[in-house]
Amino acid sequence: MRVLGIDPGLQRMGWGIVDVAGSRLTHVANGVCRGVGQDLAGRLTALFEQLETVVAAHAPDTAAVEHTFVNKDAAGTLKLGQARAVALLVPARAGLPVAEYAPNAIKKVVVGVGHADKKQVEHMVRMQLPQAQIAGPDAADALAIALCHAHHARFASRLDRAVAAAEARP
Amino acid sequence: MRVLGIDPGLQRMGWGIVDVAGSRLTHVANGVCRGVGQDLAGRLTALFEQLETVVAAHAPDTAAVEHTFVNKDAAGTLKLGQARAVALLVPARAGLPVAEYAPNAIKKVVVGVGHADKKQVEHMVRMQLPQAQIAGPDAADALAIALCHAHHARFASRLDRAVAAAEARP
Repeated sequence: MRVLGIDPGLQRMGWGIVDVAGSRLTHVANGVCRGVGQDLAGRLTALFEQLETVVAAHAPDTAAVEHTFVNKDAAGTLKLGQARAVALLVPARAGLPVAEYAPNAIKKVVVGVGHADKKQVEHMVRMQLPQAQIAGPDAADALAIALCHAHHARFASRLDRAVAAAEARP
Repeated sequence: MRVLGIDPGLQRMGWGIVDVAGSRLTHVANGVCRGVGQDLAGRLTALFEQLETVVAAHAPDTAAVEHTFVNKDAAGTLKLGQARAVALLVPARAGLPVAEYAPNAIKKVVVGVGHADKKQVEHMVRMQLPQAQIAGPDAADALAIALCHAHHARFASRLDRAVAAAEARP
């Protein structure tokens, strides 16, 4: 299973892709989409098209987006909402299921505690994906989101197998 | 010139289309896109696709979106941001210029005062577009946005002509 993680932002939108095969996690790619353009519509379109290119190039099976609760001023919240729409729309339009995880859930899975800081998250991402060249903090956050989703999916599939095995017993 | 006005909303996104020829304004169509779906990504995708169908069916030349400043709670602001992204992305991806107007600017142009209430706006939209069957308050707001943009564009083109005439004088 190939997982795309997305860290939404209007100026910089981090993305990271991880392959999951049993207990093995492999880094595929990561990067940052840039919201460049003369006006807001142009910047959203630039992000949308760059993210479409990422999805087309790497063909992930599933996507996960950080579900940020709001800790900014109203103007910042509106901007974040606009960026999140792009992060949700592009994979959904490509037919991928899109999961959302709260920041604390991501930290808890990747670092072990919900209140970890950005440096700890980046450190654990580097530990778990030693082969990755990480394109900056937004890409590291996106890889953390992909890792969180990979761990959840692995747990869900182990649970499915355990349930199936229990049901198959005479 | 054919103008598409959009009133962004995550549950109901109003749209209205007006033709402008000199001083003549003609209603073309109006309606409401519905944000239906199992999750947020699905609802945004539904809005996106319905709005794409509107743009493809009526081929507007230009679009205008209400630039709502924020007067809601943070969760409401985040939702509004997500809906606005759809309203900006769809026309921009179709190659249309997208203008944004603050609610008070729209009311000032359509009703004459910046603090008009929704009923006054709807009344003035019906006065200016008597042939329109209006699909509810969100569609009426979208037609008001289209009218605001039409008046601005007409004013801008009159100004261009006046400047050109002044420059042509010996």
